Order: sequence, then structure tokens, then C-alpha cells
Amino acid sequence: MMELEKLLLNRDKRAIARAITYAEDDEEKAREIIRKLYKRSGNAYIVGITGPPGVGKSTLTDRLVKNLVEEGKKIGIIAVDPTSPFTGGSILGDRIRMQDLTTHPNVYIRSMGTRGHLGGLSKGTYMAVRILDIAGMDYVFVETVGVGQSEVDIIKIADTVVMVLAPGLGDDIQAIKAGIMEIADVFVVNKSDREGADKTVLELNMMLDLDMPKEWRPPVVKAVAQEGKGIGEVLEKIHSHKEYLISSGQLEERRKNRIKMEITESVKNKLMKDVFAKMGNEEFDQKIQKVMAKEIDPYTVAEALYRQILERRE
Amino acid sequence: MMELEKLLLNRDKRAIARAITYAEDDEEKAREIIRKLYKRSGNAYIVGITGPPGVGKSTLTDRLVKNLVEEGKKIGIIAVDPTSPFTGGSILGDRIRMQDLTTHPNVYIRSMGTRGHLGGLSKGTYMAVRILDIAGMDYVFVETVGVGQSEVDIIKIADTVVMVLAPGLGDDIQAIKAGIMEIADVFVVNKSDREGADKTVLELNMMLDLDMPKEWRPPVVKAVAQEGKGIGEVLEKIHSHKEYLISSGQLEERRKNRIKMEITESVKNKLMKDVFAKMGNEEFDQKIQKVMAKEIDPYTVAEALYRQILERRE
Repeated sequence: MMELEKLLLNRDKRAIARAITYAEDDEEKAREIIRKLYKRSGNAYIVGITGPPGVGKSTLTDRLVKNLVEEGKKIGIIAVDPTSPFTGGSILGDRIRMQDLTTHPNVYIRSMGTRGHLGGLSKGTYMAVRILDIAGMDYVFVETVGVGQSEVDIIKIADTVVMVLAPGLGDDIQAIKAGIMEIADVFVVNKSDREGADKTVLELNMMLDLDMPKEWRPPVVKAVAQEGKGIGEVLEKIHSHKEYLISSGQLEERRKNRIKMEITESVKNKLMKDVFAKMGNEEFDQKIQKVMAKEIDPYTVAEALYRQILERRE
Repeated sequence: MMELEKLLLNRDKRAIARAITYAEDDEEKAREIIRKLYKRSGNAYIVGITGPPGVGKSTLTDRLVKNLVEEGKKIGIIAVDPTSPFTGGSILGDRIRMQDLTTHPNVYIRSMGTRGHLGGLSKGTYMAVRILDIAGMDYVFVETVGVGQSEVDIIKIADTVVMVLAPGLGDDIQAIKAGIMEIADVFVVNKSDREGADKTVLELNMMLDLDMPKEWRPPVVKAVAQEGKGIGEVLEKIHSHKEYLISSGQLEERRKNRIKMEITESVKNKLMKDVFAKMGNEEFDQKIQKVMAKEIDPYTVAEALYRQILERRE
């Protein structure tokens, strides 16, 4: 076994950091590590934290993680949220607060950028979660802004999805509903010391009651993460959901789905790498010029490029 | 020429609707139409309207379009925003208001869903814009929620990107900045009759002044779209930006980029269709079972699938 792999299994932070950097920049190397150590994975419980900007997702994550750490748990946090203080996106106060966690020996925090065009936001994220899992984390928290499709895709690898909202979103609750609400397993109305908290809780419950009856009816929890209020209850609901997933066989389904998403993402990245390589050459530039001159259309070029990839023509 | 194509060139609404449905569901047919009529495209000016939920993007679009329609312009609107009233995502009042536009002979409105997993949000969007362009629209407005990466990708095909904000977002302005602010060509502070509007304008201007000097410095415009205030000025800024793009040669660059994105997206959709077809068979299910049993890892399966696609093995 390579040194890096040994260190990874010992939850060495620099080894984790290196492995995740591979996941971002050099998929081949990350894949090699995961391949060898895959049998050590599957123990981490994955919690997705999502919701609109400004509702306090990071503060909630911070508090949940602190509680779990006190119980002796080992935690990985992945922030794929450009507005998260974990990623340095938000106000200074938040970032300082997060420092406690950053230096804790049982916590590893990683922010993942939006830089790749080879598959958008999720580039490397699935692998990063798998690496933290292999490193022996009990929980992996994945924080995303729950608005875009790529963010929804990422959060789908979670075992439990926590949707964080805040009072005063008003009509937006209906708005958010479309396509994104249905992935939530637990709702948290954070900043619930603010006016309108009860109304938001009521609206959420009404909305959930209108839904088709489900085996798991997502609970709605009030919290004031900043003051540590409601944190215990949120953890309780996460645990209840975990028990439900296990007893119903749903956990296996979710894990199967996670594997399928990892495979799809990896194949997509490989294929698109080939596509972008072909798009980088001079022949392609000339084609674009022809499209600009309307001698040819973009979809004919796409068809030819597709054939080239399949036939591995140079 | 087929009947559908003739009707499309005459801006027949049902023909447009059918062609865009093809773009969503049957890329092959849409591609065929675009191929034949590609020479007729390139005249539409594409305006992207983006920003966080709740800032009034649709109301602003509604007003901008009404002004342009009064000048005799022909307009297409594509809403890829799950929170847009155009897509039925928001409150009833908005939807009723939009009715005026829906029934106008020179306006075609289409909402595009987030349903496809074959490429997320953008499935069909680029083609839909191209179809509206072919149909002879003077402007195509594309409305997206500017938070996720896929939304940013969509908006990149626009000639002018209008970023809509509202007072009271507070710290979120810094947050939004990360990765998304830089794509804006014109900023609109909507709902500027609310408290804090001047502060938001000031903060935006400070942020823009701190930026690297650019040839085009995005202007910041105050508006109250609901009351029709500031609409003229927003249009003026869009026109100025258009003139800048033309005189600087940037318009050609943006159009080239748009073509590249259309090609990339089309090739990706084709390849991923092949991938999903392979993932649907029994052999693949058996592999997933093996991954679940830890006899094999997901990335070895991904590698094999990638080879299968390239070698077109059955």
C-alpha cells in the first residue's frame, strides 16, 4: 500500500486533502486510490444540507457537527456552496467562528469550487465524499445552495437531506417547492426567533399534508442555530430518518443510487474530456469559422464530433 | 420545405411550440429543423435575465418586453427558472399579469422544465433559443435563477446578461459575487422604492470599482418594475451594451462561444444517451449488485462502461 493510502486510512488531514485535490484535478489518480480502498468505504452516513442563500445553512452545519464531535464522532464536511462561509464566500464573522471546527482533529472541512467546466459543480464531489468515507468518517456533511439543478444532483447522494429555510421567505416557499422541495427528508426553519416563523412552519406542514401520503413524512423543526437552539431536535430527526431508511430497505436503495451517480459522473467526465480535447484543435476552429459564416450549422459539427469520439479518430 | 418549417419561418406559435418540444424530447428532429433553417438564424439579440429568487426578474422581463413590443419588436421568452411566474412557479397574481404577453401576436413565451437528467436544466434550451432566432424574433429573453452552475451556463449564451437584485439582500451581495457576479453586463436594483436601495447601489458600485478595469464597466440601474419605473433606462443600457459589443468585436466572440456551447451540449446529450442506454440493461444491474457487495468498485465499472461506449460493444 502506498504511503498516501496508509495515511488516508489513518484520517491524516494532509493525505485527505491531497486525495481530494486529485479528485478535482486528476481523476485518474483519485480513481486509483478509491479502487484500492473501496472495501473500506460505506460506513459514513451522508447528510445533505441545502436551502436558499442566507438561511444559515453553514451555522446549522457548524452546530450539528459540534454536537456530533462532542459524542466522539468523526466528521467530514464538503461545502459546494459559493455562498458558504466554509468556502470563504460570506462575511468575516462566520469564517472566524468556523475556525474552531477547522482545527479540530476529528473534523475535516473542504470547500469545492465551481471552476470546472467538465461537469460543472459536481466535478470531484462524489469522489471527495467517497474519500472521506474511506478515511473513516462517521458522518459526511455536504452543503449546497438548493436552487440549481447541479446542486440538486449533488445532494441526491445524501442519505438524509436537510432543507433549511428561514421566516420571511414568504411566497418563495411555493416557488422553492417546484422540483426541489421533494428531495427533503427533514425541514428546518432556522432563525425561528424572527417574525413569521410559525407561519412558515404552518405553511410547510400544510404543503406536506397536501402531498401524496408517504411512508416517511418529513418533519418540520424550528431552530435558532446561532444560539444553538433546536440542534438536538434536528439531530434526532436525522437519526429517526436513518432508522427509517434502514428498516424500510431504503438505505440500500439510496446507496445503490449513489453508486449509479458516481458511475454516470465518472463516465461523463471521461467522455467530455475527450470531447474538449477534440474541440481544442485547429480543425475544430476552422469548423467554428464555417459555422459563423453559415456555411455549416452547429448541429452538423456536433454530429461529426460525436462520430469522431466513438471512432477514436484523430 | 416541410409545412412545420414554413410555419416556423412565419412565427406561427404552434409551429414554434412543436419545434421546441422536439428540442426537449426528440433532439434528432429539432436538429433536423435547425440544420435546414440555420441560415435564417443570427438576427435575434439574446438577453439573459438572472438573479436570486424573489427579486422580481419576471416582472422586469414582462415590462421590458412590453416596451419593446410597443416599438413593434418580436420577442421570444424562455423561462428556465422554476420560481418564475412564467413557468407557473410563483403566486397567482403574477401569472395573471403575464397573460397580456402570452396572448400578444408578437410574443412567444415558453417555460422549460428541469426534468431531464440527460444534461440537467439546459436540455433543449440552447436549441429553443436557436429556434426562436430562426422564427424571426428580434429579441430572445432567457430568464434563469442565477445561483447554480447550470443556470450560469445557460445564461452564457446571452449577448447581454442583466443581473437583477433587490435591496435587503445585505451580506448576500458579497456572497453572490463569488463566481456569478462577473457574468453580469448590466445590474438592476429592482424594488428600489424599498429601504436600503441606495446602499445596495452603492455597494454594487464599490464592488465594481474594485474590479479590474474593463472596457465595459457594468452600469447599475435602479428600477421599480412593478410600477414601470426605470424600464426605459434598463433598455437603454442593454442597447449601449449591444453597441459596445458590436464596436469592440465582442459580439462575434460571444456568438462564437454560443456556437461552441451548442456543440458541446449536443455532443454531451448524444454520448450520455448512449451511456444511459447501457446503464439500463441487466448486465449493468448485476455489476451494481457486485459494487454493493464490494466485489468491485464503482470506478472500475465506470471505466468499463466508458470503453464499451467507445468500442460500441453491445
